[in-house]
Amino acid sequence: MALADRWLLPEGIKELLPPQARQAELMRRRILDLYNSWGYELVMPPLVEHLESLLTGTGRDLDLITFKLTDRQSGHALGIRADITPQVARIDAHRLRTEGASRLCYCGSVIHTHAAHMLASRNPLQAGAELYGHAGIESDAEIIALMLETLHAAGISDVLTLDLGHVGLFRALVREAGLDQEQKDQFIDLLQRKAMPEIAVFIETLPVSETLRKQLSVLPSLHGTVEVLAKARDCFNQPEARQAIDYLAQLAALIQQRYPTVRCYFDLAELRGYHYHTGVVFAAYTPSYGQSLAKGGRYDEIGEDFGRARPATGFSTDLSTLIDLAGVTAEAEKAILAPADVSDSALQDRVRTLRQQGYRVIQMLDGLPVPASCDRRLENQGGEWQIKPL
Amino acid sequence: MALADRWLLPEGIKELLPPQARQAELMRRRILDLYNSWGYELVMPPLVEHLESLLTGTGRDLDLITFKLTDRQSGHALGIRADITPQVARIDAHRLRTEGASRLCYCGSVIHTHAAHMLASRNPLQAGAELYGHAGIESDAEIIALMLETLHAAGISDVLTLDLGHVGLFRALVREAGLDQEQKDQFIDLLQRKAMPEIAVFIETLPVSETLRKQLSVLPSLHGTVEVLAKARDCFNQPEARQAIDYLAQLAALIQQRYPTVRCYFDLAELRGYHYHTGVVFAAYTPSYGQSLAKGGRYDEIGEDFGRARPATGFSTDLSTLIDLAGVTAEAEKAILAPADVSDSALQDRVRTLRQQGYRVIQMLDGLPVPASCDRRLENQGGEWQIKPL
Repeated sequence: MALADRWLLPEGIKELLPPQARQAELMRRRILDLYNSWGYELVMPPLVEHLESLLTGTGRDLDLITFKLTDRQSGHALGIRADITPQVARIDAHRLRTEGASRLCYCGSVIHTHAAHMLASRNPLQAGAELYGHAGIESDAEIIALMLETLHAAGISDVLTLDLGHVGLFRALVREAGLDQEQKDQFIDLLQRKAMPEIAVFIETLPVSETLRKQLSVLPSLHGTVEVLAKARDCFNQPEARQAIDYLAQLAALIQQRYPTVRCYFDLAELRGYHYHTGVVFAAYTPSYGQSLAKGGRYDEIGEDFGRARPATGFSTDLSTLIDLAGVTAEAEKAILAPADVSDSALQDRVRTLRQQGYRVIQMLDGLPVPASCDRRLENQGGEWQIKPL
Repeated sequence: MALADRWLLPEGIKELLPPQARQAELMRRRILDLYNSWGYELVMPPLVEHLESLLTGTGRDLDLITFKLTDRQSGHALGIRADITPQVARIDAHRLRTEGASRLCYCGSVIHTHAAHMLASRNPLQAGAELYGHAGIESDAEIIALMLETLHAAGISDVLTLDLGHVGLFRALVREAGLDQEQKDQFIDLLQRKAMPEIAVFIETLPVSETLRKQLSVLPSLHGTVEVLAKARDCFNQPEARQAIDYLAQLAALIQQRYPTVRCYFDLAELRGYHYHTGVVFAAYTPSYGQSLAKGGRYDEIGEDFGRARPATGFSTDLSTLIDLAGVTAEAEKAILAPADVSDSALQDRVRTLRQQGYRVIQMLDGLPVPASCDRRLENQGGEWQIKPL
């Protein structure tokens, strides 16, 4: 590598410089304080752990984007975390073992071998919250509310769209159709790509009743505002499907009551994370960004691979994306210049007090220019150090 | 890996659980706010970057403890950072290119292939500060003062010992003795191990004057309180050696005047990081911990490999060690319980306001026990939601 290239970062890897880094730090604090005020306890899992721990449960989908390492000490396979959610599931299942609900939150870097989508970096700053031990609608509502509050605390002032889906509908249909794993995976793939002609051909070849064929065909078109739910009620008679529809209607009503300006959008063929989600799935969007800002869902089996399956719902977001979108002010904090005389103890006391009061005080250094961020200075007037304009 | 082991962390890898994680977060904030109030700008370099960037300059010593990866996207060799200092040097040299002094600080995780010493983890939470662009004693004094303030802000209340050394003395002696690189490395190794008999043999075989032989022999014994400096002045006549001694005396006096309770300890054969340090080296100790709590020094050539050599001085510490030592209280924050009725908008408003005021409010979930951290609850009295004991 040439000298000139040594300072380049790998493609897709981002770093934060002044003053954005401080803005990111303050955003991190607002968000973690928000979680704290909702009763969510902070955990700080490590960047690196056994590959198997990272890839169990929800982690299976992460295999391709996880960097792998060998632990020279033990010979075991390690991974750099690509997602913090499986780590939090491990902590809930094994380290804490709380009876009743457990509310956990986190904020930390993750690394991906390749970016999750065109707008993403390979080192998102993931923040999120998880609620374990409760299966009802209140916990999903609480998690969605906290996700919306996160975007608010991050300074996202755009109108938000909340995408809502539920895997129960798809699950009921494929069970009745008797699809095997391969067919199910193929159907999921087609639905995700919204490949309508291929979907039609796929459904045509299935040995199912005409009613079910119709139901499968209508699924990809079931997205839009709340009338989609009414339409779905007319189409599906399977109990699990009806339950899913009613659940979405009830959940959306709760959210709308609390956040009347948020637009609910339903997508009943949304199967993101189908391998681990077990109920509602959701994501938040703004018009100014082509990908979701935050997303999550219910995944009641997440702890199973750690030996403790229990209800779970949660969401996560990438703070570095939120920082970009919130358009944080790029201005450095202004400072007070203090003279270089470090042996003057009255001056030192004054500087110390000012700093404790939250002022930024920069000590002058011999032979160097006044730092650009200084707009005031300390001046000795009759034995007292006073703040004067520079 | 058996199910039962999946939740184990790799040896030497630590994580923080509630309530310690929140305490760590608050310590992080106090320390970053301290740096901010001294005019140090926060940077957030990435966890992973080109191996060559991580290992240039001061980074050469890090080769063995750095995990290596291959970037599937580019085929380049990447590394997980084992130290943030070289990253900050890269940022100063290339991303910022500030004229005059540049004060930078950071706090983030690093990963080591093996622990740096018996008491260390393999994933320290490194925090530190660097001052670029000034070569005088004021910048070294400022950095040492900030290191001491860091320990204070972390809640370390033990008496601190400040170890001071200076590579100039050793440098002057080996230059006069005409040691080649191999001999120099051997001598450094012997001095680090304080292997007195071997040192005697080594010096015996050197083709040097009797005076220089005496000077080389006395070096390993030159450690202790301030009288060591007087003793050293009597021993050494080389200008660079005399300058180093005078520099240490002056620096220690400045520090003692500001921090009278800190004990200065001089070690003129201290060569930690000799490969990159160019002046004073320092470390802080307490009686209760067998390793340094924080350390640093002057390394004026650090930016050279990034194409911009300029004066630099800085320090770093491991926050997870400080958290252990500070003995943070392990008590969870108490909370107010709110009833489960999420459709009552007066209740919601009250909960929101309380949370904004810094209260922790936990919503009751249907069918679950009252969370252990709740000691108060919201009760509706005559249409108003009031805080009552639980």
